[in-house]
Amino acid sequence: MSNTFGTLLRFTGFGESHGPAVGGVLDGMPAGIDIDFEAVRVMMRRRRPGASPLTTARKESDEVKFLSGIYKGKTLGTPIAFVIENSDVRSADYEQLSHAYRPNHADYTYQAKYGIRDHRGGGRASARETAGRVVAGALAMQFLASRGISIKAETEAIGKAASPDGFDAEILAARADADSVGGVVRCVVSGCPAGLGEPVFGKLQVMLASAMMSINAAKGFEYGCGFDGTRRRGSELLDTPYTDAEGHVRMASNHSGGIQGGISNGEDIYFRVAFKPVATLMRALDTIDDCGNSIKLEMHGRHDVCVVPRALVVVEAMAALTLADALMMSRK
Amino acid sequence: MSNTFGTLLRFTGFGESHGPAVGGVLDGMPAGIDIDFEAVRVMMRRRRPGASPLTTARKESDEVKFLSGIYKGKTLGTPIAFVIENSDVRSADYEQLSHAYRPNHADYTYQAKYGIRDHRGGGRASARETAGRVVAGALAMQFLASRGISIKAETEAIGKAASPDGFDAEILAARADADSVGGVVRCVVSGCPAGLGEPVFGKLQVMLASAMMSINAAKGFEYGCGFDGTRRRGSELLDTPYTDAEGHVRMASNHSGGIQGGISNGEDIYFRVAFKPVATLMRALDTIDDCGNSIKLEMHGRHDVCVVPRALVVVEAMAALTLADALMMSRK
Amino acid sequence: MSNTFGTLLRFTGFGESHGPAVGGVLDGMPAGIDIDFEAVRVMMRRRRPGASPLTTARKESDEVKFLSGIYKGKTLGTPIAFVIENSDVRSADYEQLSHAYRPNHADYTYQAKYGIRDHRGGGRASARETAGRVVAGALAMQFLASRGISIKAETEAIGKAASPDGFDAEILAARADADSVGGVVRCVVSGCPAGLGEPVFGKLQVMLASAMMSINAAKGFEYGCGFDGTRRRGSELLDTPYTDAEGHVRMASNHSGGIQGGISNGEDIYFRVAFKPVATLMRALDTIDDCGNSIKLEMHGRHDVCVVPRALVVVEAMAALTLADALMMSRK
Amino acid sequence: MSNTFGTLLRFTGFGESHGPAVGGVLDGMPAGIDIDFEAVRVMMRRRRPGASPLTTARKESDEVKFLSGIYKGKTLGTPIAFVIENSDVRSADYEQLSHAYRPNHADYTYQAKYGIRDHRGGGRASARETAGRVVAGALAMQFLASRGISIKAETEAIGKAASPDGFDAEILAARADADSVGGVVRCVVSGCPAGLGEPVFGKLQVMLASAMMSINAAKGFEYGCGFDGTRRRGSELLDTPYTDAEGHVRMASNHSGGIQGGISNGEDIYFRVAFKPVATLMRALDTIDDCGNSIKLEMHGRHDVCVVPRALVVVEAMAALTLADALMMSRK
Repeated sequence: MSNTFGTLLRFTGFGESHGPAVGGVLDGMPAGIDIDFEAVRVMMRRRRPGASPLTTARKESDEVKFLSGIYKGKTLGTPIAFVIENSDVRSADYEQLSHAYRPNHADYTYQAKYGIRDHRGGGRASARETAGRVVAGALAMQFLASRGISIKAETEAIGKAASPDGFDAEILAARADADSVGGVVRCVVSGCPAGLGEPVFGKLQVMLASAMMSINAAKGFEYGCGFDGTRRRGSELLDTPYTDAEGHVRMASNHSGGIQGGISNGEDIYFRVAFKPVATLMRALDTIDDCGNSIKLEMHGRHDVCVVPRALVVVEAMAALTLADALMMSRK
Repeated sequence: MSNTFGTLLRFTGFGESHGPAVGGVLDGMPAGIDIDFEAVRVMMRRRRPGASPLTTARKESDEVKFLSGIYKGKTLGTPIAFVIENSDVRSADYEQLSHAYRPNHADYTYQAKYGIRDHRGGGRASARETAGRVVAGALAMQFLASRGISIKAETEAIGKAASPDGFDAEILAARADADSVGGVVRCVVSGCPAGLGEPVFGKLQVMLASAMMSINAAKGFEYGCGFDGTRRRGSELLDTPYTDAEGHVRMASNHSGGIQGGISNGEDIYFRVAFKPVATLMRALDTIDDCGNSIKLEMHGRHDVCVVPRALVVVEAMAALTLADALMMSRK
Repeated sequence: MSNTFGTLLRFTGFGESHGPAVGGVLDGMPAGIDIDFEAVRVMMRRRRPGASPLTTARKESDEVKFLSGIYKGKTLGTPIAFVIENSDVRSADYEQLSHAYRPNHADYTYQAKYGIRDHRGGGRASARETAGRVVAGALAMQFLASRGISIKAETEAIGKAASPDGFDAEILAARADADSVGGVVRCVVSGCPAGLGEPVFGKLQVMLASAMMSINAAKGFEYGCGFDGTRRRGSELLDTPYTDAEGHVRMASNHSGGIQGGISNGEDIYFRVAFKPVATLMRALDTIDDCGNSIKLEMHGRHDVCVVPRALVVVEAMAALTLADALMMSRK
Repeated sequence: MSNTFGTLLRFTGFGESHGPAVGGVLDGMPAGIDIDFEAVRVMMRRRRPGASPLTTARKESDEVKFLSGIYKGKTLGTPIAFVIENSDVRSADYEQLSHAYRPNHADYTYQAKYGIRDHRGGGRASARETAGRVVAGALAMQFLASRGISIKAETEAIGKAASPDGFDAEILAARADADSVGGVVRCVVSGCPAGLGEPVFGKLQVMLASAMMSINAAKGFEYGCGFDGTRRRGSELLDTPYTDAEGHVRMASNHSGGIQGGISNGEDIYFRVAFKPVATLMRALDTIDDCGNSIKLEMHGRHDVCVVPRALVVVEAMAALTLADALMMSRK
């Protein structure tokens, strides 16, 4: 719990945004898996800040240093620890924030819970923390790939734009207004065998919802017909089973989203995650400080206007950790 | 995991729809709490089938028998076990289903996972299982009430009807068409102190999403501005902190849904759950049996047309278990 | 934790000595296992009070009622709940104890922890609770038997008697003196494959020690050469590996007790458990009540003089739960 | 499980003996605790190899690098990650071992479990791994100290020597014989309040036994009267409660070892741990390689003859992690 995710495949993350490093320990990976380090780097690059004019200007090389659990390129079955240094840290940007409660941030709640917080860059509440998840997810994805399972997330909407050719304009317009936008990510898991998920509290959709709602800025999760399905009749959503040419059970449609009764049915698993607009706005805001005094806050620092472009790979990473764990739980 | 929910307050459920009983064990309840058994019965009555013309005709007295953990009306701090007998069981209704894979049900997936299943009334996959959750939730709610926390779920939509005066008509129309409808439940937690939730994987929204997505027929979860918030600008969703007359930190609005950075901020926590239309339709359906042969299936039995009216109390129960656990985790 | 034991195979126990019932829920049992109910009864009879002149006179039929998880004699893979009623309850025997802190009992500590306790027969701290463990262990043993693994516990010492022909005399002498005696149980697991145990904190000896130390009156655990091995040289304890006729790796001796580096090596696993003398003595004792006043206490009720004869089957049951869990964890 | 220890205070360890580093993540530490880094170093020095002529010649500076969870010398309540580099690694010493199964080592069992292993210096099975535990334990001890709880382990026996003035001679004699010896560690926890421990499977002795049996070379655990108590009468072991001058409940003696019914009673908690002789002997040994061929093995490398001197601080560290977790679980 807390900073550990998973049951048989367990990722434990650590790190503050402006501390020495972020990283994690992935425990429970099967032994003997060949690790493709370049594939890890490719996933890290997709999450990296500063990679596009649409994302924050913070520059992080995000070099991953593995400390254990891999020998001669193969997993040992022992915990895989890794560290990613925080290099481009400009804590001075945050000095004026050391006593402020930024609106829609975790400043007040961390203070209320812990009585102390690292205000620099959001500390532990920063999305910088997801760098560790991406490394772990990249490893999990290699295990899944060896079992024929693949995962792909894509942008479904940015703000009011629901088609790819409108996405950039939404982000640029928000930035021009010193504002921010949200969006929706759609993710599909293909090649998953029937039988994954542990009823009743470990249903596959429960595991996936936990994974997704743990990502910063996620406000909603739905799978299969989702919220839209509540407005339709049962007869419109029937997934009729049939036997295919190889004798496998298949469904003629997939309103269920690949999961029935909490257990995968062999069809594609698909789900959507809602991400709210970034909370940090490049304008003056009214708020209070930690003594309760009203203050006017002017935020600087380097911030995304929309988390969706960089969140895609985090969604994939968390889905990979979830599916790999479910696969191990199912003993398949 | 699996059939246990929670970390410090742990509910373990058991029971098949047509087996001898359903029930559970609630472990971790604080000692010395006075149990109001009538309040448990009131919650059970709200979930009970046969209570309204809008719900299934199955009649269950749903008498709860407590076996341990309570002495002279007070909790002992030891596990509270309870049993609810399955009395009105008509398994014969299900004989023809013993080899059928009902569309949109868990028949095929349970078979794929376990290689065996209790086909009578859906077995473990039946919503009958939630009776145990309601008992446990009723106990958790009494602990929460003693700390000033209350929980209330209400119907927000049934099918295409988004206002209370249209709800019954949607259900009756669906029944008349031998069809079914879904709906949306909205739930509010009031009186929750700031500081609940355990970043990063035990964020309060993660715990709530797990709880809700474990409920039968739930297809989506959102809190605060949810999916709708993805279409709005960050500046429209600002919750400005201020200091109230008593010197407490409050938010001028509540787009965040009472949670920031995974931790409660003292405002009302609110979330929505999407429930799909009931899968069982009172009409002939095409499907296959467990040998892969095409069959025509005519379902009888006694079934709800819409789960929402009875799901309200299950949502409250699961929210109560979640909040009580979060409260204990926070040591507040 | 608390009242749940195990990771993939999880036993959750409940019940006070003089409450309505004791019992449990066994979650995670593989599906499709034929349950031999008579074998469960045989194990329950070995634990049952009143079965021998050497044990307590309390009479319990210990009829086990299964409530879920088994259909047509086979496990479903869903939680198996069961209840054992407390029938021969003479709570009046305990009235004078309602405010007393019996020496070496859990009366004071339960009061200190919970601020309340069920004083009747020791409440949750009574060994009556182990009845549920024996049922669960009997089920686990059937799973193990199907994989060629067997478990056998035997008495190694009673008080100062270290050979079987002295055991009864030690017990009878203690009873004649209104006193009690302890003893040592030795348990052997045969047929266990190499590869069980999860380093570093889930070593097989860690799991076994947890299981054994959770049994009432257990004061020590050792495996392999144990405490005695601390007085010997390394060269005396060498277990030399060799290849047997079938090409399997074997050890020429077994000072390691079948576990090396926390993982089973395929040899017999053996360990010992120390049980202290029963705390309840049939004589007048000085103590205090829950107001701190000095009192003279005369205990009645029906009590064993030595727990060892009835503890054997509890040791086997807990070992079975442990090994079955380890087997499932190992995916073998 | 596996590489994580604890429930609310969770230590996750990682690292192979000859990999880049060992270390860990301590999650759940209360926020706002001042960390005394020098106290951490002092504990590390007690574990460090090469510190005495009686221990291995491997030299490790054992510099601890903290990566997260501490800000301006205070804990943040977020995970505390730390790394200790492996500097004095002479893997070449182990080349001839890459295919050998050393007697009484984890070589064969790791190979049987994982199908792969890092043979250099024992890999993950090496006691090098305990360096991470000592750091975490040192932090836990500072939390305990702030609550008035202290922990002290001492050597009770080395081989056949049961008094301090014989200990060194036993070790030197064993080394002269190219042999090794074991010993017994006794540990006392003082200042612990009544009420710690979570019946029935989270009894305080269960938690302590788990902690101790997870240490390399530990073969036995006992608390209070332990194995010796099995040979005594109940009347000899009575701990009579009384009320002291301040009105506190105390026990006139402490055969119970500070725990009754799995819950601390406020007296000193004491227990003993048996450590076997070191498995590595500086002499030629018969064994087999991983193809099953008989081989003669001559071990070099740098090894302790007796683990006890360096194990003392590991026992203290694991006891500290256990008690801190129990304290947090008890909400005291």
